[in-house]
Amino acid sequence: MDFASDNSSGASDRVLAALVAANAGAAMPYGADPWTAAAEQAVQEVFERDCAVFLLPTGTAANALALAALTPPHGAIFCHEEAHIANDECGAPEFFSAGAKLVGLTGAQGRISLDALKGALARFPRGLVKQVQPSALSITQATECGTLYGLDELDALCAAAHGAGVDVLSFGATKNGTFCCEAVIFFDPALAQDFAFRRKRGGHTLSKGRFLGAQMSAYLEGGHWLDLARHANAMADRLAQGLGTCPRVRLPWPCDANEVFAILPRAADAALKAAGALYYQWGNRGLTVSEAPQADEVFVRLLPSFATRPQEVDRFIEIVRAT
Amino acid sequence: MDFASDNSSGASDRVLAALVAANAGAAMPYGADPWTAAAEQAVQEVFERDCAVFLLPTGTAANALALAALTPPHGAIFCHEEAHIANDECGAPEFFSAGAKLVGLTGAQGRISLDALKGALARFPRGLVKQVQPSALSITQATECGTLYGLDELDALCAAAHGAGVDVLSFGATKNGTFCCEAVIFFDPALAQDFAFRRKRGGHTLSKGRFLGAQMSAYLEGGHWLDLARHANAMADRLAQGLGTCPRVRLPWPCDANEVFAILPRAADAALKAAGALYYQWGNRGLTVSEAPQADEVFVRLLPSFATRPQEVDRFIEIVRAT
Amino acid sequence: MDFASDNSSGASDRVLAALVAANAGAAMPYGADPWTAAAEQAVQEVFERDCAVFLLPTGTAANALALAALTPPHGAIFCHEEAHIANDECGAPEFFSAGAKLVGLTGAQGRISLDALKGALARFPRGLVKQVQPSALSITQATECGTLYGLDELDALCAAAHGAGVDVLSFGATKNGTFCCEAVIFFDPALAQDFAFRRKRGGHTLSKGRFLGAQMSAYLEGGHWLDLARHANAMADRLAQGLGTCPRVRLPWPCDANEVFAILPRAADAALKAAGALYYQWGNRGLTVSEAPQADEVFVRLLPSFATRPQEVDRFIEIVRAT
Amino acid sequence: MDFASDNSSGASDRVLAALVAANAGAAMPYGADPWTAAAEQAVQEVFERDCAVFLLPTGTAANALALAALTPPHGAIFCHEEAHIANDECGAPEFFSAGAKLVGLTGAQGRISLDALKGALARFPRGLVKQVQPSALSITQATECGTLYGLDELDALCAAAHGAGVDVLSFGATKNGTFCCEAVIFFDPALAQDFAFRRKRGGHTLSKGRFLGAQMSAYLEGGHWLDLARHANAMADRLAQGLGTCPRVRLPWPCDANEVFAILPRAADAALKAAGALYYQWGNRGLTVSEAPQADEVFVRLLPSFATRPQEVDRFIEIVRAT
Repeated sequence: MDFASDNSSGASDRVLAALVAANAGAAMPYGADPWTAAAEQAVQEVFERDCAVFLLPTGTAANALALAALTPPHGAIFCHEEAHIANDECGAPEFFSAGAKLVGLTGAQGRISLDALKGALARFPRGLVKQVQPSALSITQATECGTLYGLDELDALCAAAHGAGVDVLSFGATKNGTFCCEAVIFFDPALAQDFAFRRKRGGHTLSKGRFLGAQMSAYLEGGHWLDLARHANAMADRLAQGLGTCPRVRLPWPCDANEVFAILPRAADAALKAAGALYYQWGNRGLTVSEAPQADEVFVRLLPSFATRPQEVDRFIEIVRAT
Repeated sequence: MDFASDNSSGASDRVLAALVAANAGAAMPYGADPWTAAAEQAVQEVFERDCAVFLLPTGTAANALALAALTPPHGAIFCHEEAHIANDECGAPEFFSAGAKLVGLTGAQGRISLDALKGALARFPRGLVKQVQPSALSITQATECGTLYGLDELDALCAAAHGAGVDVLSFGATKNGTFCCEAVIFFDPALAQDFAFRRKRGGHTLSKGRFLGAQMSAYLEGGHWLDLARHANAMADRLAQGLGTCPRVRLPWPCDANEVFAILPRAADAALKAAGALYYQWGNRGLTVSEAPQADEVFVRLLPSFATRPQEVDRFIEIVRAT
Repeated sequence: MDFASDNSSGASDRVLAALVAANAGAAMPYGADPWTAAAEQAVQEVFERDCAVFLLPTGTAANALALAALTPPHGAIFCHEEAHIANDECGAPEFFSAGAKLVGLTGAQGRISLDALKGALARFPRGLVKQVQPSALSITQATECGTLYGLDELDALCAAAHGAGVDVLSFGATKNGTFCCEAVIFFDPALAQDFAFRRKRGGHTLSKGRFLGAQMSAYLEGGHWLDLARHANAMADRLAQGLGTCPRVRLPWPCDANEVFAILPRAADAALKAAGALYYQWGNRGLTVSEAPQADEVFVRLLPSFATRPQEVDRFIEIVRAT
Repeated sequence: MDFASDNSSGASDRVLAALVAANAGAAMPYGADPWTAAAEQAVQEVFERDCAVFLLPTGTAANALALAALTPPHGAIFCHEEAHIANDECGAPEFFSAGAKLVGLTGAQGRISLDALKGALARFPRGLVKQVQPSALSITQATECGTLYGLDELDALCAAAHGAGVDVLSFGATKNGTFCCEAVIFFDPALAQDFAFRRKRGGHTLSKGRFLGAQMSAYLEGGHWLDLARHANAMADRLAQGLGTCPRVRLPWPCDANEVFAILPRAADAALKAAGALYYQWGNRGLTVSEAPQADEVFVRLLPSFATRPQEVDRFIEIVRAT
């Protein structure tokens, strides 16, 4: 019953097999290998268009380097006030951008509200020299609350920001079945012109690049990544639905992806811990006052992954129901 | 006959097997796993002392983060003028140190000369505010010329620098048999106090940290790393000795490690290329005027690795001898 | 009737005279001149203790360099959410600190509340690697709302922060009667050890340093700076008291220093503009909902300076009263 | 007899008078004042073309900000190995450019040689990701040796660099008669688009901007700056010619501007010091082996300024001749 993090699983069997296969023989270093080329090709097929693709070992690097490609040092990056880039990466975006400013925006259930974005744009007018300049809007699917933006919400935010769609995508694969592989994808290749230098300078160009290429190729081949994600999401659904039928359990937010946020009775929490279940207690900041846990309750985050088994989920629910 | 780079090999069989084994089951993320703990323990045993150990995916990151831990933004890093950190990392040390200055020192065969170091220290007196301040001395074994410093040379350089020995070691494993794993080792743990933050901020803290731990553990276990290195060195020796007996081939520098630098007749170079041999032509900057290649010669670098087979070496020599 | 900014005045007559006098003859450059030495001495006398003093030409540089001396790149700087350093310096603190993060805290009338500080310290626990680390607390007297912290409030904030008092002071003189002169004052000289290098590297070490020294010496001599400040404060008091007696004018915050924030009837605003009065309309963010201006009102900031004449103040009040 | 630095003089009488005059009354802050507008206009007239002009208080800031406008963090700045930006600004270019690399080029008498530039361009090929990318060529008139580039030399260097002429000029006025005023001038305004933000963020936007504007306006008006420079140059000429007729004095380099480099007998040096003359002993690095001072000689730099009087020069020569 490990629901602590989707980083606690290893790689999927197919990704592991691909890595083993790619290990044989010699290959050109620094990404000039056939596995990397295949991975770039596969990304283009997934997104059905030309794009510039860069593989990287970590999500923090992918996020921060992608933002740095869009943002001058005197730029502002708009993101949700609870965003991972703002709170969980030890200032990586500031580091890679040479000191840009992250501006946290409000919005229910982890989604930036259109009003908050418009307000921020009004607060940072273009050309006002004493202020940093709006340069990037960072949106994550799923959000920190495990929710999703609807397409209409995304359209409205993008329209407010500049009228276009996604410029750069930090496409994570580590949490969903690889060892350590992420892709930064530029849909506007003009934005990518310095990226190879930034990646190298940041120490994120792997010398044995085939190792990244092999992971990403296997991850995308035949829709493997979607199968893994569907499984994780199904496990989260199963968990949310099961908990939803338990008396005295509250689920403040919908389960749109593979994260379940639940307010549990303390007794259930104690029983789960005693049974060896792993998960994190969560901060209340995203909850409204009426949702906040009472003295005899605990707010927790539960994260099934591609490797979670249905039996783990069922046992978890059983323990909660039994207390 | 791939002598282009020791990055063109994959991982050793033992490292690969360890990775496969480590993939099973769940583990705490971000380095709080047993493989990482074992790797740290193994490093301490190799160096026979307490030290602070940090695993990282790339050598550029290891080098640059280690230097940044020693060097303020207004610091000077002394290194050989041909050093990898100065010429081959796209300014990573400047990036991680927030703009410190690398000062290139001279010295024959890739080794910083004591006179050059003393001269540099005299040029950058402590407390002179208009100049950057001496903060780190970077020495690599082997050097960019494939040579080694003697212990007496190291003692003299360290004595000139500050009277102590090695403070921080960037310990490479990728080129010698892992996929992507390096260690930054602080022999003075006081210098390490910010390192975990710097590594995180630089995007070099792998979420599935066990993957680094498993590589390094297997690499060190039972002296595996020394076996791999001895093989690579033996292949280089075999190559150097074989080439040394070929007429019209000149070896300007001794072969102290696993790099052979050779001045070949153009005809031999052409025959090798035709036979599919891979290696890089090398710049003349490190050569003295009398050593420099003539019009009918080419200066090349040959890099055997842990995976090089004796037959490759022998065939290479044979082709050279036959032309 | 210029109440737009205390930067719109020039220098006081005494400061100007000192500058003219200091211009004669030769002097050692880069601050090694007698005027700078005298200024440093005068600062120590004002603060009645030993301290390290550095003169600089701008307040932005003084603020940002002072913060950078306290804050590593992975540090957090706590400040009021409306603070000048957070909103009006185009990211200078991020630039000089190599990417530290400013964390905006709430509090009424421009003063950080103790609860907000405690909450922030709880949100950024020491040693949690994914987060930036609390490194500096920035407090300004007067605040952005023209209010002052009481000594008990300061004590409580400092106790929460680390138990000590002020470590570094950015001491402004430009707005109160010099051309361009500020001082960064370290009450703990150990924190100042790198400052001369940071200042030089930032381009803030004036070659003809006597020019800064002469300004600061004249500014402090015989309590001149206090006379200037008292005059500005008295003019603000006169303005606040006068406006306070005007029907339909509201003053949301006390006038503790030389800033008056007033909610004026639109008719008064129009009459003032017609009469050539200069001042800025102000954002409502610091106001409570019940304080916010109605449709027929305007929220404005009025800034008397050392050079403001009582007649200007009286005429301003008269116009408001007459509408 | 102060020949230590042209920073040891104050401002010229005309600049001082302009400053005093500009002090009266109120003016818009941050450069939105008539003096700044007039200064920008005057610069355009001097250079007989449209250009973007930014006033700043120090030369280090002007140099470093100008370079940062041209150079990405992964860029290389080519300059003479003895350049002020490389040796005397405590790493300011690295700071403002977020870690670009200064590459020192050789060349006799302080002038970058065309061969050295071509060699450097060959060493840093475009698109080679492991290396920083050529981004700026920095040339100073006069050089660190007090010599000038000929127009043909400049043309050849610019042609090698990119076929164009000067993009950005750091135009110094402090050393030649102002208190603290420099201009960064963009002849290609497209390069200037971020400059106002960079200047603000660097703390170099003076709040009482009129003070810079008044200095620069007076400095340029009626060719005042040329008069000042001609005087300094004439004093240097007088000094060089006088010393040139002294037995046992050697002048290794021509005196093209207001700097005289001389190898003096130690006895003369002692007599000058005894008479209170101020000047710096200079490092030998720029001298050829045959030029280097003997044991009984001293290599010195002598810097007359706009404020130097002919009597000082004559007395200096007299003392040398008499020993």
